[in-house]
Amino acid sequence: MIPLPLALTQGDPSGIGPEIALKSFAARKAQALPPFFALGDPELYRRVAQALALDVAVEETTPREANEAFESAFPVVPLGISVKGEPGESDAADAALTIRSIEAAVECVAKGEARGIVTAPIAKAALYAAGFAHPGHTEFLGALAKRFFDVEARPVMMLYAEELAVVPITIHVALREAPRLLTRELIVETGRIVAKDYARRFGIARPRLAFAGLNPHAGEGGAMGREEIDVLAPGIAELQAEGIDAQGPFPADTLFHARARERYDVALCPTHDQALIPIKTLAFDRGVNVTLGLPFIRTSPDHGTAFDIAGRGVADATSLIEAIRLAGRLQA
Amino acid sequence: MIPLPLALTQGDPSGIGPEIALKSFAARKAQALPPFFALGDPELYRRVAQALALDVAVEETTPREANEAFESAFPVVPLGISVKGEPGESDAADAALTIRSIEAAVECVAKGEARGIVTAPIAKAALYAAGFAHPGHTEFLGALAKRFFDVEARPVMMLYAEELAVVPITIHVALREAPRLLTRELIVETGRIVAKDYARRFGIARPRLAFAGLNPHAGEGGAMGREEIDVLAPGIAELQAEGIDAQGPFPADTLFHARARERYDVALCPTHDQALIPIKTLAFDRGVNVTLGLPFIRTSPDHGTAFDIAGRGVADATSLIEAIRLAGRLQA
Repeated sequence: MIPLPLALTQGDPSGIGPEIALKSFAARKAQALPPFFALGDPELYRRVAQALALDVAVEETTPREANEAFESAFPVVPLGISVKGEPGESDAADAALTIRSIEAAVECVAKGEARGIVTAPIAKAALYAAGFAHPGHTEFLGALAKRFFDVEARPVMMLYAEELAVVPITIHVALREAPRLLTRELIVETGRIVAKDYARRFGIARPRLAFAGLNPHAGEGGAMGREEIDVLAPGIAELQAEGIDAQGPFPADTLFHARARERYDVALCPTHDQALIPIKTLAFDRGVNVTLGLPFIRTSPDHGTAFDIAGRGVADATSLIEAIRLAGRLQA
Repeated sequence: MIPLPLALTQGDPSGIGPEIALKSFAARKAQALPPFFALGDPELYRRVAQALALDVAVEETTPREANEAFESAFPVVPLGISVKGEPGESDAADAALTIRSIEAAVECVAKGEARGIVTAPIAKAALYAAGFAHPGHTEFLGALAKRFFDVEARPVMMLYAEELAVVPITIHVALREAPRLLTRELIVETGRIVAKDYARRFGIARPRLAFAGLNPHAGEGGAMGREEIDVLAPGIAELQAEGIDAQGPFPADTLFHARARERYDVALCPTHDQALIPIKTLAFDRGVNVTLGLPFIRTSPDHGTAFDIAGRGVADATSLIEAIRLAGRLQA
């Protein structure tokens, strides 16, 4: 049985997304990547390939014919909208196409034309200027889960590399807000989604979840903060009572060396930096963003649009290659 | 010229301090360690060596004869007090000796009998029970700097390994207190001490200091917290105006991969975990605690008394070995 292809969104056309998509395609045999197709403007990909002298042909296709095209050319499913912006300069006029590409990718999965989606980086500011009403990429995917799958999704961001998988429990908030936002409900809700979805996507019946403490030394018995006693321990106990293999809270600083990492599958950390520091220290270029809690597979590279280097041919495709590879491995 | 020996404190006699001191001595030739002597109860070291079947002779000596003794036996400068506690059970009756060992080590440096001190772990609870009036080891050393060197010291903790050196700007405080404690004054004071003392101890004329932000993505221009704009940037500018090579604030998560680490000598981080996570992830067993801001060299292993494994012979001496090695390398 031939696997369904992955749907790759265009992302912001003025960022490095098109370049790293073409580079990933060029590396598909050396990297043994599963088949994928892009959703966007074929002319954009042709222009970028030519400008950067990438020896890649671009072929307009349909999702159902994408696997065949993938053998010899970069398959693009056209969306009937042309890109206006130049590399390095995000153009609000392209926002409609950027958004449409994401919608179309999810729709492909819902229609059984793609096995999952891989998203290229977007620039939220350009989308807001065009009236985009979602706080970010992930929240928009939650709304699309409702539209195309009729599922109330609660997306959870996981950063994944071979060495380590981490989930920040609070994410893009000021640090002084994090202690207040770290509620027992949030801990339990996040733990449940990670346990259930990691099991499903990675085919591990009972994944081992390790929670980090919020405070230095996990509070040292209340001497340096009480969130471990008042919030984390009760939340972890509630997860355990549901049969989830949740452990902790452990001091965050000693949770990420090689021996410690053998003891769990996913580390859940109260703050952004507690989760992102170790994975970017260990696997800076190879980290992949995996969204758990959606009714479909979604991965993305762990970097942004990088407008400052767009159009120069120097963008590193490693994280997108790893995102495509992982999306091909995850179970639907 | 023969270098002065290092003075090694006894630490809590019921912890793993004596065991790792004897193991470090046994490894002195293989590890090319500089000469050192311990200050404490010679009988304690004899008992531990015998109980753990370590083939190490213990010799009572004076600081001035320690180098000679070091060739063939573990040199101990007796302090005239016998240890009461057993391995694994800290005894408040030993607090006086534990404290005396630290005082005597600093006194040796002040008298020109030792080139610096390496401290074995202590248990603060046991010392408090005996009336110890200092918040911790480092503050006590600050008081001894005043007593023996007549210097108003402001000790700053640095964690050091070959790969990375980090300074937490706030340390053992609840995370919810850290934003309030992170003042411009604290940033400037810490940066000055690190710049001056790193230059002196490591022989680098103008060390490169990189500051991490407090918030995710260093606040992203104020979108996720304003401490970078209101506190960190002005503090860094003040350091720069004094001629110090201070840079940042940088997002903490991308500050610790191999290429990023090439750009600075010391990373200064607003919170404990931002600093401790990367060094313990990269160099779990090899991290060394170096106290900057004292009028003498002080290093220590980056772990505690480990009462749970004391007396079993399984303690890993790596961090103490690295602490001794570094103390021998630092410039007086």
